[in-house]
Amino acid sequence: MRILSGMRPTGKLHIGHLFGALQSWVKLQNEGHECFYFVADWHALTTHYNETDEIVKNSVELVKSYLAVGIDPEKSTIFIQSEIKEHAELTLLFSMFVSVSRLERVPTYKEIKQQLKDKDLSNAGFLIYPVLQASDILIYLAEGVPVGEDQVYHIELTREIARRFNYLYKEVFTEPQPILSKVPKLLGTDGRKMSKSYGNIIPLITEEENLKKMVMPMVTDPARKRRTDPGNPENCPVWNYHKAFGISDEEAEWVKDGCTTAKIGCVDCKKLLLKNMKEKLEPIWDRYNTLTDDYVRNVINDGNQKARNVARKTMEKVRDAMKLDYKFLRK
Amino acid sequence: MRILSGMRPTGKLHIGHLFGALQSWVKLQNEGHECFYFVADWHALTTHYNETDEIVKNSVELVKSYLAVGIDPEKSTIFIQSEIKEHAELTLLFSMFVSVSRLERVPTYKEIKQQLKDKDLSNAGFLIYPVLQASDILIYLAEGVPVGEDQVYHIELTREIARRFNYLYKEVFTEPQPILSKVPKLLGTDGRKMSKSYGNIIPLITEEENLKKMVMPMVTDPARKRRTDPGNPENCPVWNYHKAFGISDEEAEWVKDGCTTAKIGCVDCKKLLLKNMKEKLEPIWDRYNTLTDDYVRNVINDGNQKARNVARKTMEKVRDAMKLDYKFLRK
Ligand code: SF4
Ligand code: SF4
Repeated sequence: MRILSGMRPTGKLHIGHLFGALQSWVKLQNEGHECFYFVADWHALTTHYNETDEIVKNSVELVKSYLAVGIDPEKSTIFIQSEIKEHAELTLLFSMFVSVSRLERVPTYKEIKQQLKDKDLSNAGFLIYPVLQASDILIYLAEGVPVGEDQVYHIELTREIARRFNYLYKEVFTEPQPILSKVPKLLGTDGRKMSKSYGNIIPLITEEENLKKMVMPMVTDPARKRRTDPGNPENCPVWNYHKAFGISDEEAEWVKDGCTTAKIGCVDCKKLLLKNMKEKLEPIWDRYNTLTDDYVRNVINDGNQKARNVARKTMEKVRDAMKLDYKFLRK
Repeated sequence: MRILSGMRPTGKLHIGHLFGALQSWVKLQNEGHECFYFVADWHALTTHYNETDEIVKNSVELVKSYLAVGIDPEKSTIFIQSEIKEHAELTLLFSMFVSVSRLERVPTYKEIKQQLKDKDLSNAGFLIYPVLQASDILIYLAEGVPVGEDQVYHIELTREIARRFNYLYKEVFTEPQPILSKVPKLLGTDGRKMSKSYGNIIPLITEEENLKKMVMPMVTDPARKRRTDPGNPENCPVWNYHKAFGISDEEAEWVKDGCTTAKIGCVDCKKLLLKNMKEKLEPIWDRYNTLTDDYVRNVINDGNQKARNVARKTMEKVRDAMKLDYKFLRK
């Protein structure tokens, strides 16, 4: 199956991204699918058109994170959206037959406007961004798109656009399927929703010392005011981290029993979590630290070239289908 | 001055286009300006996305008409919009900071929707087409844009977009000026508004026989019911044609005097018109008939290449200004 997914280069990745997306990307790659993973830098503009200082830096960082978690450029194509101009051409062509009211009805259109009241989201780019997203997916003829729940509607719109194109012109596009994975619910270290502004997020790429500094003061079951108070893992954010980072049956038993009977303290419990987190994250950090600029540059340039070749082939089919192909000029 | 203008390849040109645009294009070229004249085929999609069968043929025909009226590829750059993908990229980038409500306020947006009620104009492409137009103009850093009255507002929006970009990022664009030329008001041969569906339009490229067939039955001053009734040129569509196609002072005197005193008949008057039309149009037809496919192909390919080079240079500046330049990849 051909898979496509991407992330916006809006800042450093955190462990939420690992479980929300990257882990399933690696899994799909290792199952032998043909994967395209990209940096959605034009998408970042739809909400951040006036904060572009960091986009290039963040894009390169994002690629490094992809590589660090185990995306293998020998198996997957890693590329940067804005380097493949064909996405813009296809977006323009799709916009010819997608209605404004259809785009206004996309649920996230109004929702995100509500959520980000301090941002200027009146721009046309924000309105048409689902069309850009459809182009990203369809230009690679992707069949599966790993997404979060909130993106399922966009995949539906992408399928609609594919159908509409095929109907209006000629059968070119396949309808992609969303691939949903079970995502463990991780709260911030203070028990609130993860948010950059709360400073309660554990970065994906960090050091052991910093990890310790963030995990040890984590909020736990409020019932455990004192060391001798028994608690319940189900009421504790630390428990969710345990489940996300992998805990053996034996260790899980130890936590459940120790917590509910106050045999262990939260400090003991967090030390176990730290050990398991380190086990999972250290290989990622190590890989991250071996990445040289030269290597990363080659990965991106190779990926861009591969992506561009696929995109160009699709665009040839698109122009042929739409009868916009100036064969006359190439005789 | 750098000049840019274009036409949609929506069908055969008629003599209205000659006086409305092409004649002033030739004049600007011959005054020594650096002119870019293009075929706006993507624009044709904004209103005709589901009628694309003829676009390529019409585009090539349009170029042939440009050449026939005297656009000289040695002096001017003739190119096809959809062959310069950078227009799409710039449109996408501009759409990031142009608001939807701003585009809805463009007077032609509602007007054309009203006029073309039988057409589906709810598409996003029709909403953003002034942004595409701004890209067409600004990507060549054009300083002057020959337009009709109805397009002046679009140039104003283009200037706004240029200013906004320069303010948000960095000074890249110059603000273009509209170039308005006095256009003689020509009605159709039946005295009604020129319209394809009325069949009252004289094509730009035709033959003497056909010209005669269209001019001789032309509607004249309704007062001249009989040959002996005096008339008034000011109430006669033929008179406007005389003025458009060039009539000497002597001839004008002859018409005015002859018409108002019934000394001449309308047939005499139209024969004079035919002579003057032929004088103007025959060189155009002759040039049109010498154009070989090879020549036209070379003109377009050369023009596309020249346009592409200019567009690419501008896009480098744009990406640099927006800090979207992955210099890192090109070390
Ligand atoms: S012992 Fe562990 S699961 Fe129980 S409250 Fe403390 S941190 Fe949470
Ligand atoms: S003589 Fe000429 S100007 Fe007068 S009504 Fe006839 S056609 Fe018109």
